[in-house]
Amino acid sequence: MQIAILVFEHMAVLDAVGPYEIFSRVPGAETIIVGADAGPVRGAGGDLGLVADASFDDVVSPDVLVVPGWAGSRQDDLLRPGRAQSWIRAVDERTSWTAGVGTGALVLAGAGLLTGRRATTHWLAVDRLAALGASAADGAVVFDGKYVTAAGASGGIDLALMVVDRIAGEGVARAIQLLVAYDPQPPFDSGSVDKAPAEMVSTMRAVGGYFLDGGPAVS
Amino acid sequence: MQIAILVFEHMAVLDAVGPYEIFSRVPGAETIIVGADAGPVRGAGGDLGLVADASFDDVVSPDVLVVPGWAGSRQDDLLRPGRAQSWIRAVDERTSWTAGVGTGALVLAGAGLLTGRRATTHWLAVDRLAALGASAADGAVVFDGKYVTAAGASGGIDLALMVVDRIAGEGVARAIQLLVAYDPQPPFDSGSVDKAPAEMVSTMRAVGGYFLDGGPAVS
Repeated sequence: MQIAILVFEHMAVLDAVGPYEIFSRVPGAETIIVGADAGPVRGAGGDLGLVADASFDDVVSPDVLVVPGWAGSRQDDLLRPGRAQSWIRAVDERTSWTAGVGTGALVLAGAGLLTGRRATTHWLAVDRLAALGASAADGAVVFDGKYVTAAGASGGIDLALMVVDRIAGEGVARAIQLLVAYDPQPPFDSGSVDKAPAEMVSTMRAVGGYFLDGGPAVS
Repeated sequence: MQIAILVFEHMAVLDAVGPYEIFSRVPGAETIIVGADAGPVRGAGGDLGLVADASFDDVVSPDVLVVPGWAGSRQDDLLRPGRAQSWIRAVDERTSWTAGVGTGALVLAGAGLLTGRRATTHWLAVDRLAALGASAADGAVVFDGKYVTAAGASGGIDLALMVVDRIAGEGVARAIQLLVAYDPQPPFDSGSVDKAPAEMVSTMRAVGGYFLDGGPAVS
């Protein structure tokens, strides 16, 4: 079994590394970090580089595909026809599971893979997900057939555990959770629009376009 | 303000990247990834490479130091006198906060920084933490003076939010939690020894030495 995690410039690194920490511990599975080309890429903020060990050409038939989200930069290359979209469409034809974390769901939707499907994404991007043809659904993690999407960064960890449950069994999923000691106890309860103070949400919506694409919000 | 996150071979990548995702969003703070030498290092499992942008020589006075844990390999170089330990001791003299995530607490203890202090670590390493002079305490995140330790990988995210609360205020911490949509909802409740099935815990304890150091458990 091969699990491919896509990386690209300005990615939200936790969206990729959370699932990596879970998937990389599945017995008998190979987890591979894939970029358009092999080599280092810079995450959002520019302070952290991850290394893509394989290029699009190297990975043609993964069993699981994970697409992380991004922050602070336009990602038109990922959302429009091009090399990345072609690769995602091609490998998706053979995956058992195709996953999007945070705004990674927009990438899947942009490739036409979520049309008419229930999906979730980062709360600032829900309208855009719908505009790309998906049916925006409530939930930290949403399954629709083989497509699974997570709303936030920690949701990528939750998503990975849920997929591991399906591909390797609940015992393996629970053992991995114990091994990595994934026992979150956030000191505040502000991780979603339902829980955060209303004023904080509205302020962030006002400047959210910048967070997502480095420019005015797309409405 | 400078926040330094240490990286090294066989590190548990989520221990570093969880705090990174939080700290890197603090306004006015610089987050820097530090290795013994600049360049890529491989995390535990070997499938993911992170790039150290700075060497020990480059970072002499960070305000916050974060030391992640590791898995699947001995880390004697980090636990015994040597270049890493000397650097950690030196920069700790000027930090406002010194943090260990997972087995990262052992590194701090090995450097003599947790002697007599309350601290936590990965559940498989609690005995070793005590053997290194710390007072093992219950809790997902434990503060003792400027030293803060987290039991697990997700605890690194919680730890980071708690430190951000102290250095930048609760409003900033909550806004970052909302921005990264940190709203964990684990599908299983097996992330600690108190919650996981007893048989799973005992099985893992039997093979846990391998997880921690690639050899027999140190008792």
